[in-house]
Amino acid sequence: MAVDTRTLNRVTTSQTRQERKQRTRQALLDAASRPLTDRTFAGLSLREVTKDAGIVPTAFYRHFDSMDDLGIALVERAMRSLRTMIREARQNPATYDDAIRASVHTLHTHVRANEADFRFLTRERYSGTGPVQAAIATELRLFASELAIDLGRFEVLSTWSSEDLRMMADLIVTAMLGIVMEMVDVRSPDADADEEIAAKARKQLRLIVLGVTSWRSR
Amino acid sequence: MAVDTRTLNRVTTSQTRQERKQRTRQALLDAASRPLTDRTFAGLSLREVTKDAGIVPTAFYRHFDSMDDLGIALVERAMRSLRTMIREARQNPATYDDAIRASVHTLHTHVRANEADFRFLTRERYSGTGPVQAAIATELRLFASELAIDLGRFEVLSTWSSEDLRMMADLIVTAMLGIVMEMVDVRSPDADADEEIAAKARKQLRLIVLGVTSWRSR
Repeated sequence: MAVDTRTLNRVTTSQTRQERKQRTRQALLDAASRPLTDRTFAGLSLREVTKDAGIVPTAFYRHFDSMDDLGIALVERAMRSLRTMIREARQNPATYDDAIRASVHTLHTHVRANEADFRFLTRERYSGTGPVQAAIATELRLFASELAIDLGRFEVLSTWSSEDLRMMADLIVTAMLGIVMEMVDVRSPDADADEEIAAKARKQLRLIVLGVTSWRSR
Repeated sequence: MAVDTRTLNRVTTSQTRQERKQRTRQALLDAASRPLTDRTFAGLSLREVTKDAGIVPTAFYRHFDSMDDLGIALVERAMRSLRTMIREARQNPATYDDAIRASVHTLHTHVRANEADFRFLTRERYSGTGPVQAAIATELRLFASELAIDLGRFEVLSTWSSEDLRMMADLIVTAMLGIVMEMVDVRSPDADADEEIAAKARKQLRLIVLGVTSWRSR
């Protein structure tokens, strides 16, 4: 089949432009999350972020409406990572000990692979009030709701009230955010330090799960 | 007995001066914790804090060496509140259900009475790296160690390894900090909203404690 070269060129150019735009967007997100090791998002300037991403300040608005808009996109990226994680853990519904082991392993891998995003998420969660913090609070609430639904599918939890499932999900999310905080606070991560944190995470989850067997939902 | 009036006057003046100095110190601490509802400690200026406390900027140095020094004093004040709380809960070693009820009640009362301090503590804990954050991390570690020792005194936990006691104490501290965060995030606190949070706190602690009965420390 004969192909119109001009059409092909146009498609290629358009794809390349889309790809380039996507790359710049990612570069802006990366540039914004990098300096958050010792600063809060509110302290970042648009000028600094664009400079680090290699674009002129005015070009920022081709990608985001405002710094808050960029912040919310960062929240979404970090939460996507967290969702992927939980989806993977969900696919292995063997014993609860296996589920715990798999979850903590996935959490650990994801945190180390997306450290800046997780640092952003945990730090900003507590650093004040603003559109970015509100977005994190909402996302974490949704995340805990989904987890509560997942928990309700376990035989032993099938008789629990939705309020109690939510209480348990909140405790798990809080405990795991604590673990994430510990991981991103390790200055020079090594396998031993990480395994120590992971071992604690597994035990904390196990302690929570063991409580279930003696619990009466009322 | 005849009293030397000059000595008496000197003592009174000196006491008054001490008291006044103490009052100004408290005013500076209060002035520093007040604006932290939507800002981080790093964003506060010495000028702003002294103005709010009603003293000239240069007088600041009669009380603190630096803003970080003031921040660390704030950490100590907030932690004192937390310690008093746990000491009170410790004095009623009836059933674990009573202990949980008493602890959550005391936590709730203390948080509402010292909201600015607790908000400072929970927010700053996660907001970055600096002398103030390091002081909070150290204080919370010490606090969890003390709690681990207390937990070890319970009959059912007497066979637990110190590592496991610490793991449990860390989980309790993380869960309770999560509860404190929820409390200080309530915009206009009322009895119903507070009772809902307190009920969740009691259930989370109960779930953790129930796990103990099925746990084997290994």
